[in-house]
Amino acid sequence: MQDQLKLMIPGPTQVPQTALQALARQPISHRSFEFNAVMAEVTENLQWLHQTQNDVLLLAGSGTAAMEAGIINFLSPGDRVIVGTNGKFGDRWAELGKIFGLEVETITAEWGKPLIAAEFAAKLEADSQKQIKAVIITHSETSTGVINDLETISHHIKNHGQALSIIDAVTSLGSVNVPVDTWGLDVVVSGSQKGYMVPPGLGIVAVSAKAWEAYQTAKFPKYYLDLEKYRLATINNTSPFTPPVNLIVALQTTLRMMQQEGLEAIFARHLRVMKATRAAIRSLNLSLFAQDDYASPAVTAIKLHFANAIASQLEADKIREVVKKRFDIEIAGGQDHLKNKIFRIGHLGFICDRDILTCISALEAALLELGYQDFTPGAGITAAIKVFQTQI
Amino acid sequence: MQDQLKLMIPGPTQVPQTALQALARQPISHRSFEFNAVMAEVTENLQWLHQTQNDVLLLAGSGTAAMEAGIINFLSPGDRVIVGTNGKFGDRWAELGKIFGLEVETITAEWGKPLIAAEFAAKLEADSQKQIKAVIITHSETSTGVINDLETISHHIKNHGQALSIIDAVTSLGSVNVPVDTWGLDVVVSGSQKGYMVPPGLGIVAVSAKAWEAYQTAKFPKYYLDLEKYRLATINNTSPFTPPVNLIVALQTTLRMMQQEGLEAIFARHLRVMKATRAAIRSLNLSLFAQDDYASPAVTAIKLHFANAIASQLEADKIREVVKKRFDIEIAGGQDHLKNKIFRIGHLGFICDRDILTCISALEAALLELGYQDFTPGAGITAAIKVFQTQI
Repeated sequence: MQDQLKLMIPGPTQVPQTALQALARQPISHRSFEFNAVMAEVTENLQWLHQTQNDVLLLAGSGTAAMEAGIINFLSPGDRVIVGTNGKFGDRWAELGKIFGLEVETITAEWGKPLIAAEFAAKLEADSQKQIKAVIITHSETSTGVINDLETISHHIKNHGQALSIIDAVTSLGSVNVPVDTWGLDVVVSGSQKGYMVPPGLGIVAVSAKAWEAYQTAKFPKYYLDLEKYRLATINNTSPFTPPVNLIVALQTTLRMMQQEGLEAIFARHLRVMKATRAAIRSLNLSLFAQDDYASPAVTAIKLHFANAIASQLEADKIREVVKKRFDIEIAGGQDHLKNKIFRIGHLGFICDRDILTCISALEAALLELGYQDFTPGAGITAAIKVFQTQI
Repeated sequence: MQDQLKLMIPGPTQVPQTALQALARQPISHRSFEFNAVMAEVTENLQWLHQTQNDVLLLAGSGTAAMEAGIINFLSPGDRVIVGTNGKFGDRWAELGKIFGLEVETITAEWGKPLIAAEFAAKLEADSQKQIKAVIITHSETSTGVINDLETISHHIKNHGQALSIIDAVTSLGSVNVPVDTWGLDVVVSGSQKGYMVPPGLGIVAVSAKAWEAYQTAKFPKYYLDLEKYRLATINNTSPFTPPVNLIVALQTTLRMMQQEGLEAIFARHLRVMKATRAAIRSLNLSLFAQDDYASPAVTAIKLHFANAIASQLEADKIREVVKKRFDIEIAGGQDHLKNKIFRIGHLGFICDRDILTCISALEAALLELGYQDFTPGAGITAAIKVFQTQI
């Protein structure tokens, strides 16, 4: 039904009414004191959300623009970097690094499994010549619903002393605890259409003093993504190039909402909806793609390789189709080799407990419609409700 | 007064209510058939607006991102290029080219004067070795209100046979005739917050077959701004990275408005508001920074160096301040060495005849308030009305 579609994909996420209304305001001049005031507030609140004193810079661009900025500002051709890859976005970092002529060494885990922190420790400890310039990690791997142990890995990077940590926090920031200063993260990139609850179009990059030191000797030519320009502009509460003012005004409103809610409550809410989703999926006798130990609070991937004969005839994309057509909920499919093998429920950003009940109900209905009967109708919902009863 | 501010700067421009409402819709998934349908329509209408069969690609980024894409996709380090510079944006191209290691040769005109087409002809004809890889021209120089003679210059570039034309049409596309195919323009960049009547955040690049040939041998590393990725995605009515879906949905509505109005009517409207503005400024005995022959239909710059003693005490920024404070209209100042020496009235995109009456009335009031009396009160408005009576 028109205007009823509900997004439960891992970005873009739903946007609060307050932010939609802010988006719909006439643009203001980006060279005005009104915009300066917005930038001052947004920058301060971004630092709050990142739990950092580092610079936090806003780019007009997608999360990938922020990723590229995170590489070309702090590294040089031929630099040796370690990239953790256990999903599509880890692969993207490796590809990006290779295209820019970095010497990319990957530490890999199977899609759906987490990166092993000890493998990073081993490589970093073996590097007595301190030739590793950066370690690049995807915190929450959106393609698989796996969250990597960034705290431990960043601890190993700090022990190395030289290497920068370059972190993709696209589906973790604003959903999961990412204490940038406590963990000593150097470059942290994210995008507006995830935990920030704003439509896509803004990339965000947090930069440490150590990264700025590396900037001084970094050799890639850069202009649009030259973060020094953004740093200098941000000091004056402005932007080097015409910024997406409407998106920034919308971000101002969602950051206020987030402050109102508080970091602890935000993280608890994401954990709660994750647990409810996972409990429900189990009760439907479907398989979770990632185990509990390393499940991302932002997105849950459900796998369709079953021993069960009836279930094995289910197709992920068919389930998504029914859920969308009959119940106006968009859930995500699998990417690359996981296409039609998994589906993914995004539960980050502007998500409340009710959304999970809604989504699980629709999923139950779709499964029944498709002839899958290997669960007690209502079991998914009952399991989700039980989580909500115990986790308040 | 809150919510009353009216932008009459050369971007961001005012946005129609229809587009603001589109912006405020919940985002849709960028991997959905709904988005495919939007992209198909938008791409087709962008080609209509560009009067071209070439690819027209959408980037998440500012106009500067589109400019950088226009260079790094089609040139290589050391390539010899000619850059026309007669204002801030021409200078930006030269700076961009130098940062990326191009051998930049400039053809310069004083700020406020147009580039001389014959100087391009001379350089291009002298290049018997065909070493000039590209000629880079700013069509409408936003910083000075000068429009360069792109038709003639592009004719000289075609005569050269080898050099690509790389055109900044940021404040001309959607306001002024830019017949991409007729003039044989190879790379044409623009941004959403100008003639397109959409808030900032989208860069647009049109690419000719000849430019795609050059792409094959271009040697800059690129990822986020790799236009081949966008070309391939656009064939499938999608985007290589998460696109700013809300801005694109808004662009869909403004392109429909533009089609409704028709190209000829759009160009005539811009010419008409330009003529009315210029007639009014003359009747106020203020100086136009650009002469009639090369005045941009997008923006009019007014200069404050007068022989007149009283006028010479006027400060551009003071005028802007009064116009904003008392009448809630934002007009633009001068940039770089023209700061406080000129002010600029933006009259592009979502602009109607009434807006000019409004702006000129406010300007008259502000001038009187500041003690400038070298005009008959009402003379500006009367002159504007006369233009509107004869140019319908």
